[in-house]
Amino acid sequence: MTQNNVQAVKEIFIEQILNPKRICVFGANNNLLGTMGSMQLHNIITGGGFSEIYPIHPRLERVQGFKAYKSILDVPITPDLAFLILPTKAVPEVMEECGQKGIKNLIITSGGFREVGSNGIELSNRIDAIAKKYDMRFIGPNCLGVFNGWYGYPAKEDAYFNTFWIYLPHKRGNISIVSQSGTIAAQTAWHTNDMGVKVGKSISVGNERNIDMVDLMGYFKDDPQTEVIGLYIEEIKRGKEFINLAKEITPKKPIVAIYAGGTKAAARSIMSHTGSIGGDDKLYRAVFKETGVISTNSISDFLYYIRTLSQAQSFNTFPMGKRVGIITDSGGPGAMMTKTAELYGLEVPEFSKPLQEELANDLPKTASATNPIDVTFHDNFLNMLIKFPKILMESGEVDSIIVFGIYDFDEIMEVIESSGSKVDEQMKKMKDLIDIGVIKPIKKLMKKYSIPVFYAGPIPYRSPWMQKFSSSDIPIFSLWDQPTKCLSMLTRYSEYRQNIS
Amino acid sequence: MTQNNVQAVKEIFIEQILNPKRICVFGANNNLLGTMGSMQLHNIITGGGFSEIYPIHPRLERVQGFKAYKSILDVPITPDLAFLILPTKAVPEVMEECGQKGIKNLIITSGGFREVGSNGIELSNRIDAIAKKYDMRFIGPNCLGVFNGWYGYPAKEDAYFNTFWIYLPHKRGNISIVSQSGTIAAQTAWHTNDMGVKVGKSISVGNERNIDMVDLMGYFKDDPQTEVIGLYIEEIKRGKEFINLAKEITPKKPIVAIYAGGTKAAARSIMSHTGSIGGDDKLYRAVFKETGVISTNSISDFLYYIRTLSQAQSFNTFPMGKRVGIITDSGGPGAMMTKTAELYGLEVPEFSKPLQEELANDLPKTASATNPIDVTFHDNFLNMLIKFPKILMESGEVDSIIVFGIYDFDEIMEVIESSGSKVDEQMKKMKDLIDIGVIKPIKKLMKKYSIPVFYAGPIPYRSPWMQKFSSSDIPIFSLWDQPTKCLSMLTRYSEYRQNIS
Repeated sequence: MTQNNVQAVKEIFIEQILNPKRICVFGANNNLLGTMGSMQLHNIITGGGFSEIYPIHPRLERVQGFKAYKSILDVPITPDLAFLILPTKAVPEVMEECGQKGIKNLIITSGGFREVGSNGIELSNRIDAIAKKYDMRFIGPNCLGVFNGWYGYPAKEDAYFNTFWIYLPHKRGNISIVSQSGTIAAQTAWHTNDMGVKVGKSISVGNERNIDMVDLMGYFKDDPQTEVIGLYIEEIKRGKEFINLAKEITPKKPIVAIYAGGTKAAARSIMSHTGSIGGDDKLYRAVFKETGVISTNSISDFLYYIRTLSQAQSFNTFPMGKRVGIITDSGGPGAMMTKTAELYGLEVPEFSKPLQEELANDLPKTASATNPIDVTFHDNFLNMLIKFPKILMESGEVDSIIVFGIYDFDEIMEVIESSGSKVDEQMKKMKDLIDIGVIKPIKKLMKKYSIPVFYAGPIPYRSPWMQKFSSSDIPIFSLWDQPTKCLSMLTRYSEYRQNIS
Repeated sequence: MTQNNVQAVKEIFIEQILNPKRICVFGANNNLLGTMGSMQLHNIITGGGFSEIYPIHPRLERVQGFKAYKSILDVPITPDLAFLILPTKAVPEVMEECGQKGIKNLIITSGGFREVGSNGIELSNRIDAIAKKYDMRFIGPNCLGVFNGWYGYPAKEDAYFNTFWIYLPHKRGNISIVSQSGTIAAQTAWHTNDMGVKVGKSISVGNERNIDMVDLMGYFKDDPQTEVIGLYIEEIKRGKEFINLAKEITPKKPIVAIYAGGTKAAARSIMSHTGSIGGDDKLYRAVFKETGVISTNSISDFLYYIRTLSQAQSFNTFPMGKRVGIITDSGGPGAMMTKTAELYGLEVPEFSKPLQEELANDLPKTASATNPIDVTFHDNFLNMLIKFPKILMESGEVDSIIVFGIYDFDEIMEVIESSGSKVDEQMKKMKDLIDIGVIKPIKKLMKKYSIPVFYAGPIPYRSPWMQKFSSSDIPIFSLWDQPTKCLSMLTRYSEYRQNIS
């Protein structure tokens, strides 16, 4: 698999940076609290993939359990990646030595380059010259590095390569992120883990002095482990190439982008961050529209959108039209989702009489079968979670489905048992029933009909019942704002994809 | 205090319904799993306030530990509240008996009234007539009942009155909710608890046959425990009274409303939910604008807005203008918040040279002091969390402040220790330092300058470090979408409040 990837992707240097076998690290010591670099080395080690790490340190004999070397020139082999977390002014000399050693790929996290003004620009030019001299490629400077959840796969099932200072790895999946902000690349991991946003690769590109977003887009275009691309943009450096490449990618692999520039103060903020000159918001919006890139100013929407598209890629559930069927056990969320669906350009059509009658067979008298289907208080939750979605799919009257009413039954059982009431064994097994009775069949149905089903409930993502859905890649939402928003996005993208291909 | 409340508020019947001393319950048994009503009684008992509960049951001797009676007429005293969770058709007869017994206040949760059509309307008229005959007031039908976090306060510090079927009570605070959906009144508790949205009272009004939203708004207007009002609306039944009352309330107690109607399918959804006829969205928006009511279609925004206003009421931090100071350790979130602040109508002004110089004294060279202040990687987190906000407040150059960079240091220490590194005692006490060094002084500063400070970080709300802020009512945000959104809302409301008073 890894071998195939190497062949499949043209940008070999990126493949090598994401999958180094032997790595040398500059700027880490044994004090994890004192320097970011030490924590970053710790995270590289924790990733579990490496047997060969060569810390370079002027004084220490050992760094975090590995033999340290005074200079890269003392290292007995030639590492295939150098990772630099050094003070700015030390960078050129170390790069020189790496070049002499024959190292071709680097990650330079150090800040203090063009984003600080003229001195920084001079320094940037110097590192460019060194890279050119030795035919080296590098990510950065002024970045956090890379995360590769597919590192060593499939030989090393649980390994990953994480140079970020955040110890929490993303859960591996078909999403790849390229970000001009380290925070968006790395520090979103608590939320991606909670929500089930499965990020396989995430690159913090920093100032993009050598390898830029367009390079990485080119890599991800051909990368078989990537099916969705997320971008955080402060400036697109090669506009023409970006447009041409994005147009090629989006019909097959959706791209979601945040553009952080476009206002006066934002431009000031961006200048001090990565030294970029942000452009007019309208211009960027036009570029996104032309290239089929989905864009947002919200980090939550960004995470929800890439998750939605990731799951749609997995099940091939791109809705063929705008008609949503809503199933709920709760009138308020039902009404709110109906309203927002319409505001977002979807339709919530009244079901045909025969369909209403079919549904009514399994509904209490106080319930409604028009659309939304309001099952009210239900004692047969399998009707709501699987039978009704199946009936709607078979009816041909909807293109997508939302089901609201996921609760944590284990928690309910606990409350009941703690009150002294008895809970029979059947009820305790409800959680297993979900696997067999809901998750397995809905996966099949989604694939069969190409109709996405979004589940939602009022409980938080940390709940085991939510995790049960998200770990199976079934779309699951906490609260009821995002299902219609994401469905609207997905429906518009599907339309684009159908029209273009 | 409770005695004062009774005198302070005009709507005595609502005060009694929220604070009953002796309650009779129809429709609960010992099978918590089988009926909603049994769970609801369980939750009433768990609330801990009651010594006198009288379950009425045709067969059982005891219900959930309390002596049961065959009929309300057999109960030796006259309860001050009857709670009905019965099949629809049983309601009129039970109401009759309650009337004969002299019970004046009821909560009727049973559905199947006007929301199901003509039969239901007939039944509705019957219960109206019975209520009139015996001079009874009731909440419902077709509702979940009430939550009163202030029940028994201050004598019973931890008691609450919860008739919902959700066992998780809201955390008590100055927010009161009136909702035409039980889900929005009750099932938001997981999120209100996580986020620190402190809901003291929450009423599910159902079909509003007797007591309606306007009654409750009148009650909350004078209720000293209420400083913010949240409304979920499918229909305003008494438009004129609503408008007059809202105009009276909003200059002192902000109102946030969701209106779920206004589209074609939403109208159908609402009809089947509470039997209401939702009106045109434009009309409702005009009413909200005229009355100073803050409105949204999003449940997340609703929760964030009521929390923001609740905290602003606590600290009296209503910004005097649109100028935001942003402090961040992370360029990406800084740029995104700067952009969205401007898009939402706020200003992120460049600081004066003297202020920039003052800030630069405590900043690394790679950092920026223009606004946003980007501290980059920082080893003195007290600068970012308290010193810089204080400098900005004193400068007179901002009306509100956002600080991004809250992490869970305990988690970081754990990672470091688990790696074998030593963490000194000083660092371990960082959490206590937050109390003394950040939370206490920022509370004082916010009050002194009337400038709100919003903290944010990439970690989830369940993190103890987030809970530390939210339990002290300090505005704290997970991710970086909501700070600017909420600040924009708060700034607009402050302007309204200043102009009107």
